[in-house]
Amino acid sequence: MKAEIICSGEELVLGERLNTNSAWLAEQLAEIGIEPVQHTVVGDDEDEFVDVLKRAVAAMDMVVITGGIGPTVDDVTRQVVARVAGVGLARDAASLEYIQGLFRSWGREMRPSNAVQADFPEGAEVLPNGRGTAPGFRLKIGKCEIIVLPGPPAEMKPMWDTVVRPTLEGVSGEILVTRTVNCFGRGESDIAEVIRDLMAPGMNPLVGDTAEDAVIKLRIRAKARSYEEALGLIDDTKIEIRKRLSDVIFGEDEDTLESVVVGLLKSKGLTVSGAESCTGGFVTKMLTDISGVSASLTQSVVAYSNEAKVRLLGVPSELIEKHGAVSEAVARAMAEGARRTARTDIAFATTGIAGPTGGTAEKPVGLVYIAVADAQGTEPKELRIRGDRQQVRDRSAKNVLNMLRLRLQSF
Amino acid sequence: MKAEIICSGEELVLGERLNTNSAWLAEQLAEIGIEPVQHTVVGDDEDEFVDVLKRAVAAMDMVVITGGIGPTVDDVTRQVVARVAGVGLARDAASLEYIQGLFRSWGREMRPSNAVQADFPEGAEVLPNGRGTAPGFRLKIGKCEIIVLPGPPAEMKPMWDTVVRPTLEGVSGEILVTRTVNCFGRGESDIAEVIRDLMAPGMNPLVGDTAEDAVIKLRIRAKARSYEEALGLIDDTKIEIRKRLSDVIFGEDEDTLESVVVGLLKSKGLTVSGAESCTGGFVTKMLTDISGVSASLTQSVVAYSNEAKVRLLGVPSELIEKHGAVSEAVARAMAEGARRTARTDIAFATTGIAGPTGGTAEKPVGLVYIAVADAQGTEPKELRIRGDRQQVRDRSAKNVLNMLRLRLQSF
Repeated sequence: MKAEIICSGEELVLGERLNTNSAWLAEQLAEIGIEPVQHTVVGDDEDEFVDVLKRAVAAMDMVVITGGIGPTVDDVTRQVVARVAGVGLARDAASLEYIQGLFRSWGREMRPSNAVQADFPEGAEVLPNGRGTAPGFRLKIGKCEIIVLPGPPAEMKPMWDTVVRPTLEGVSGEILVTRTVNCFGRGESDIAEVIRDLMAPGMNPLVGDTAEDAVIKLRIRAKARSYEEALGLIDDTKIEIRKRLSDVIFGEDEDTLESVVVGLLKSKGLTVSGAESCTGGFVTKMLTDISGVSASLTQSVVAYSNEAKVRLLGVPSELIEKHGAVSEAVARAMAEGARRTARTDIAFATTGIAGPTGGTAEKPVGLVYIAVADAQGTEPKELRIRGDRQQVRDRSAKNVLNMLRLRLQSF
Repeated sequence: MKAEIICSGEELVLGERLNTNSAWLAEQLAEIGIEPVQHTVVGDDEDEFVDVLKRAVAAMDMVVITGGIGPTVDDVTRQVVARVAGVGLARDAASLEYIQGLFRSWGREMRPSNAVQADFPEGAEVLPNGRGTAPGFRLKIGKCEIIVLPGPPAEMKPMWDTVVRPTLEGVSGEILVTRTVNCFGRGESDIAEVIRDLMAPGMNPLVGDTAEDAVIKLRIRAKARSYEEALGLIDDTKIEIRKRLSDVIFGEDEDTLESVVVGLLKSKGLTVSGAESCTGGFVTKMLTDISGVSASLTQSVVAYSNEAKVRLLGVPSELIEKHGAVSEAVARAMAEGARRTARTDIAFATTGIAGPTGGTAEKPVGLVYIAVADAQGTEPKELRIRGDRQQVRDRSAKNVLNMLRLRLQSF
């Protein structure tokens, strides 16, 4: 089954708002075995939209449309679908009542313009919207199934999950299931080389990779007749990948470096603290993104100036004078000072040159020292990161988290 | 002039990678008066791509294509364009030499497959790529101008800026210029109400708004015959908007709350420090995202536990016992303690319940106290933020930055 995704919106076609609906829906369709073959973005010109939809209806088994079902004159999707279907619009009493009720619950009067959101092409099935005033609808035109959803992702996604997807699972006779293995600490091409045979076209499961800010995600996509069969195929491939990449793998699916570190801290009942210079709070911010970290993280300091490193962490000022603030010796002393002052099981530190200014021939932008200290000792690491300020800080923070992960795994 | 943007890539059509090229190119086209009316994403099926391009060539004055000009068999763009143009492919000796030179400079042998990147439809003009091995090209088919660029944004954008855009400016006879006024501290609909007349369709300049994570950006788009004329129109509208929204406006264009705060600190020669609880380093991370902050920010502490608040910031433990850690009194004491221990001109503090757990009827998730302290005194603020953990932390951090901005402006 072939599908097209059409997103309508003047702000989308002008590039003022990034269209994220198409990619999200494409993944959803692929997962249930419906092949997305084209995405189209159109503005609010009704005639142009009609041409696009006519072509799509002739070529596709399914068209998913988002956007253009609001209350204003530039919301043209319901008219466009009605015109292509060759039917009129009819007002749905139940939907009108629902919209009026929403306004009452907000203590506001429904404006007359909102009533058009209860208009649907004749013969359409209404799709309830739990989060907004625009219900969606679905309709067959010839052999092509049209599904219309609201544009805002916060309304569209729950409608897809609860109202649309359950009715589509199994229609294609096969399903695609994707799971992800997440890696850090080696380059994309390095990793691809190690698992090249699993990435060959035609493999099932097929492994693909994407790199985002130094995290390499290996997608394992299995095609099968049932969900269980697909998961079984995926598990076999996962075992093979783990055998080859072992320590480079930090988690699966939605796992992040910070969620894995916090998970290890919690499960092992350990406490952590930090001392950040060049990362300026980035590592601590990432750890505290994770709910429940307060049982493990008591404090952390951003010691940006040399004086703060001495005063807050007890780094000997002679050490800074001798080696410079950006040095392995100072990174070690910071981590040890953080652990001592916060009395935690483990502590981390960062010091480096984030740029774009401040680099020298000897200590260039991107030179960063990190360290992790625990009762067994202190492990330092020198990083030489290529990239802009944001990348230097991001890679530094992720390297710290990865070092914490590897240390915590051995506790 | 009407234009369509076509992006080719199997990973795009399957939704595995988000397509950001279309939106970026659409804004670029609109700025030089060429109207983007459709975006299309296709996979690597050559016949389907040919159908899409044939339709686009018949309907548009210009088609910009990105992707599909790499060295592998699934890179089909050059064949597709040649087929639609009804010409063959010819190897360009200069491009081949350039690609071979690139490989030599990397100390690697060019694989034979890379030679196809020097193949172009007969009659095409080659567009040099300063950052990769895939040159682009342009070609007229009938009266439609086809421009082909590589898929990776890091290669595509510089090529557009330096090679393509200069040749297109002025072709449409009018230009669109967009500037942005950035607001924080009032809701989107509140702000829209105040400037409703400036947002009426047909206005020139036309004002539109987008809200992203509580920052409201007002786009002012002017249509004119020259760049100078457009800027003049925009300036008049800016003056009007500033008159109505004054303090709600924190900056323009690329300004962020953190860049404005750091700019004020630098220009006034002031120092800052922080004490973060619920934001866990988020505010300090944002401030240190800005290059040059080290002259103003010496230190900051994340005092997550009560003990850390007492030890690092000198918050009286009786105060925590009496009011609880999440209270106005503790926020004040944290800000004052941060300013005292770090000896800075100004200091900020956050304490609150980020959720999803930890809320009570009296102190629900989203209750956050922030404070800013300086020599004039301490200003506290109670926030009641609706949303998930990420939103509570983000809004808390932005409210602190906005409070710092307003205080620093009066220094």
